[in-house]
Amino acid sequence: MITLAVDCMGGDHGPRVTLAACRQFLDKHPKAHLLLVGKTESLESFQHERVTLVAASEVVGMDDPVEVALRRKKDSSMRVAIEQVKAGAAAAAVSAGNTGALMAIARYVLKTLDGIDRPAIAAQLPNGLGRATTVLDLGANVDCTAEHLLQFAFMGTALVSVLDEGSKASVGLLNIGEEAIKGSDIIKRSGELLRTAGQAGEINFFGNVEGNDIFKGTVDIVVCDGFVGNVALKTSEGVASMISNGLKQEFKRNLLTKLAAVIAYPVLSALMKRMDHRRYNGAALLGLRGLVFKSHGSADAIAFEYALSRAYDAACNNLLDRVRSRIARAAPLLDATPAIAAAPLSAS
Amino acid sequence: MITLAVDCMGGDHGPRVTLAACRQFLDKHPKAHLLLVGKTESLESFQHERVTLVAASEVVGMDDPVEVALRRKKDSSMRVAIEQVKAGAAAAAVSAGNTGALMAIARYVLKTLDGIDRPAIAAQLPNGLGRATTVLDLGANVDCTAEHLLQFAFMGTALVSVLDEGSKASVGLLNIGEEAIKGSDIIKRSGELLRTAGQAGEINFFGNVEGNDIFKGTVDIVVCDGFVGNVALKTSEGVASMISNGLKQEFKRNLLTKLAAVIAYPVLSALMKRMDHRRYNGAALLGLRGLVFKSHGSADAIAFEYALSRAYDAACNNLLDRVRSRIARAAPLLDATPAIAAAPLSAS
Repeated sequence: MITLAVDCMGGDHGPRVTLAACRQFLDKHPKAHLLLVGKTESLESFQHERVTLVAASEVVGMDDPVEVALRRKKDSSMRVAIEQVKAGAAAAAVSAGNTGALMAIARYVLKTLDGIDRPAIAAQLPNGLGRATTVLDLGANVDCTAEHLLQFAFMGTALVSVLDEGSKASVGLLNIGEEAIKGSDIIKRSGELLRTAGQAGEINFFGNVEGNDIFKGTVDIVVCDGFVGNVALKTSEGVASMISNGLKQEFKRNLLTKLAAVIAYPVLSALMKRMDHRRYNGAALLGLRGLVFKSHGSADAIAFEYALSRAYDAACNNLLDRVRSRIARAAPLLDATPAIAAAPLSAS
Repeated sequence: MITLAVDCMGGDHGPRVTLAACRQFLDKHPKAHLLLVGKTESLESFQHERVTLVAASEVVGMDDPVEVALRRKKDSSMRVAIEQVKAGAAAAAVSAGNTGALMAIARYVLKTLDGIDRPAIAAQLPNGLGRATTVLDLGANVDCTAEHLLQFAFMGTALVSVLDEGSKASVGLLNIGEEAIKGSDIIKRSGELLRTAGQAGEINFFGNVEGNDIFKGTVDIVVCDGFVGNVALKTSEGVASMISNGLKQEFKRNLLTKLAAVIAYPVLSALMKRMDHRRYNGAALLGLRGLVFKSHGSADAIAFEYALSRAYDAACNNLLDRVRSRIARAAPLLDATPAIAAAPLSAS
């Protein structure tokens, strides 16, 4: 029996979406147990034998500053969900709330793993090979040192090993050219550290990759700082949505194009399904002493259910132990770099 | 009569593409004159009353390191084309060659304008409003100070004013959230400088924008450092190409889908035309004492012709004077910031 703690109040839609997703998830996962965290009046109508309601009197708003979420709302559904993980009552927490607040609270409540200076946000993006590329960091850290990027490579490798046991996941360093001489000093130094780790057999380092390689599927894992990762993620969402809106406009233009739309519908819908971003919902907050997954704030029930499944799979496959042991194995490499004991949190 | 100097040897395809584009361009621009620069044997078959051949014995390869292009190939078609601008024989130079080499040679031959520390590469990307968003820098500068980003805002405003005379083009700062507290220290400081310039009426500063805003058309101009801009550009190319390949695959799946493709073809082709990246080919190298335009290396004749037209329009509309006068008007704002006389070139 695996138990997840669900922040039912988070996200743009709150319980309407999260509870519908929880019901679908429970139907498909007969061994799962859920702790539904939130305001009693919002949740009490939900009855299920594998569900326990956990009351939380406050809600972190999507626009709440990190400080408000962290210091003033100590009984928020987000925080209480994470505290279930800390207390050992749940194997993972899932929230669609404000990313910056989630990272700050998770870090404050759970603390980081030994050997990890900065937790990172890792998500999967669909690629042209029909698989997924794992990208981290996606916005937790706006300034990263080369050592942080090395840690991201180890954590990303552990995450991918959960999903694809036998593989030796390849890691690419996001840069503005393939050659090792490209990029800023930090990026060049990151390349050196990653190459050393690759030569030591701790990761499967491919080399530099460029923005388009994320969607080509050139490597399994792409590491970058949170500023660049966030821009890449939002840019890709922007392009996809421009093309999809453009298609809709063109097909609505006149009677003939509307007829074409009817005929092309099955084909377009097959493509949409393949690239449906909802299937990739559920970003992992890595580097903490507990599992926390972040759903997109605008997720619908289908998307939120994917985030729950992702957290469930990670818990079933001991993602936490895998990250811990990867970091431990890599200790000699990481110890050789200056430790930053109390790096300031720069949450997005 | 406006004269352009064309590096006919640059790009993935060389004279086969550049000469075809030049012929089309001359047909459409009866007042244009072209200096075709390259190896005599490659160009001598091209006969036109408004064309002059200029011999250059060397070619900068797409993979040539910047140092080789700059120091060892002093008679390259790229360099000779830029020297035509320096000598006043041409109003602008156009090349599809290696970006890093082009920027380095242009900077070395032409020098930067007074008040500009770093030239930038500015290109237009299609947006959902059916217009274009101008983004800079796209890869000339991997590390930028807040002052550089302010200069980019001025140069971008001058560039857009060439295309759309009456408009007060809006400028957005690429960040990972809308709030002014987001981003690194450099980004926050850039926000302050841009706000001050906006309050002084020198630019129309909108505030922070995110990656998706480039394609939404939230602002006319997006400023960012060259690392982030390059990642955003390549990422957007990657997504567009994944979706377009996915469409092709789905439509080719069986006889029915192939039939659907025939019927949907006019609609898809209308969309492709609207978003055709070739229409946006031709990035401006801004901040130099002369006009230089960069075509995509893989450009075909249609795309290269767009780059020629863009350079021609910029020359007709005195882009150089506009950039110069914007920078001069902004001198009090820029002078308040530390001048970096000899910033190292970090070309991508």
